Amino acid sequence: MITVGTVLFEGFELLDVFGPLEMYGMLGDRVELLLISERIGNVRSHQGSVVVSEHEFGGIDSLDVLLVPGGMGTRHEVTNPALINGLVALAAKARFVTSVCTGSALLARAGLLDGKKATSNKRAFAWVKKQGPNVEWIAEARWVEDGNVFTSSGVSAGMDMTLGVIERLFDRQTSVEVADQTEYEWHEDKNWDPFAKKNGLI
Amino acid sequence: MITVGTVLFEGFELLDVFGPLEMYGMLGDRVELLLISERIGNVRSHQGSVVVSEHEFGGIDSLDVLLVPGGMGTRHEVTNPALINGLVALAAKARFVTSVCTGSALLARAGLLDGKKATSNKRAFAWVKKQGPNVEWIAEARWVEDGNVFTSSGVSAGMDMTLGVIERLFDRQTSVEVADQTEYEWHEDKNWDPFAKKNGLI
Repeated sequence: MITVGTVLFEGFELLDVFGPLEMYGMLGDRVELLLISERIGNVRSHQGSVVVSEHEFGGIDSLDVLLVPGGMGTRHEVTNPALINGLVALAAKARFVTSVCTGSALLARAGLLDGKKATSNKRAFAWVKKQGPNVEWIAEARWVEDGNVFTSSGVSAGMDMTLGVIERLFDRQTSVEVADQTEYEWHEDKNWDPFAKKNGLI
Repeated sequence: MITVGTVLFEGFELLDVFGPLEMYGMLGDRVELLLISERIGNVRSHQGSVVVSEHEFGGIDSLDVLLVPGGMGTRHEVTNPALINGLVALAAKARFVTSVCTGSALLARAGLLDGKKATSNKRAFAWVKKQGPNVEWIAEARWVEDGNVFTSSGVSAGMDMTLGVIERLFDRQTSVEVADQTEYEWHEDKNWDPFAKKNGLI
């Protein structure tokens, strides 16, 4: 049984969370999905939809995957000690630490990317880089894997990265089956990234 | 201002809802997103995440887009008169009627696809067809557009269809910009569908 803990905060980006959770969810009874936040209760996304978080940071014993989304809410959360300290504590209990989009700004502020390669949303790249001066930021990548840390590019890239994480947790065939079930065309090459060039980063 | 009303029910599929809402959400202050259900309050998705619905069927005056997701919950909802009658009433107030995945089974049961072309999830196709004997079901399609009704294939296809709807609401350039912002590779050709063949439907 794989446990995936997703961190929610006000202003999180919908697809950063629910793209990956759709993919993990296809694992059926092989997976448990937990939503975690500073306080248990309703959390409003950037788009307005409200999601119920059923766990707080201190209530988690261990995770196979920690998932940190991005979204406009990260602009506030990078200076929220409760969130940043919560990430440090959760990452220490997680087998894999992952982020989508500007979620890597939060991991960077928590020091979890220091000395590692990482990527982020292409349109927020300059801001994200400032959050982690000791990180080796990779502009052109669908996602970056460095040790047990996976960071993805913007929004949709989280689904491709998640299939990459599922490959590590199980095997490639499992990821291909999940992609087929969701009728998703997996960008399996983690170096595929037309958006870096489109946004003038390379 | 474009108003998008999304119907929620117990057991809805996460990405069927939040893939499209991510795309619509990128329209910023040009769009209003409403979640609608039989009763206002918490609605649990098939994957377990709980979302707060803030509107009931009778509380909606008009919509630009009605969005009906699929998911395992459709197996129950096809025989729920409150949901089916709710869809009939909402569709009559909507400029565009759209579904993702097995959401087309619900539209079919509501009689909203009679005499029209439509598609659905490739792995549930036989079951969906039974829900609408007077529908011209198209097996190979990313999405199908017939008059003001859009139906998409499984799960991920909802994002491609939504960009197609945004093209009708605004223009192609707006859809391309939304895809770029979400770092999404839009399958703009609505006939692109490798999953029909993979699942032996053609």
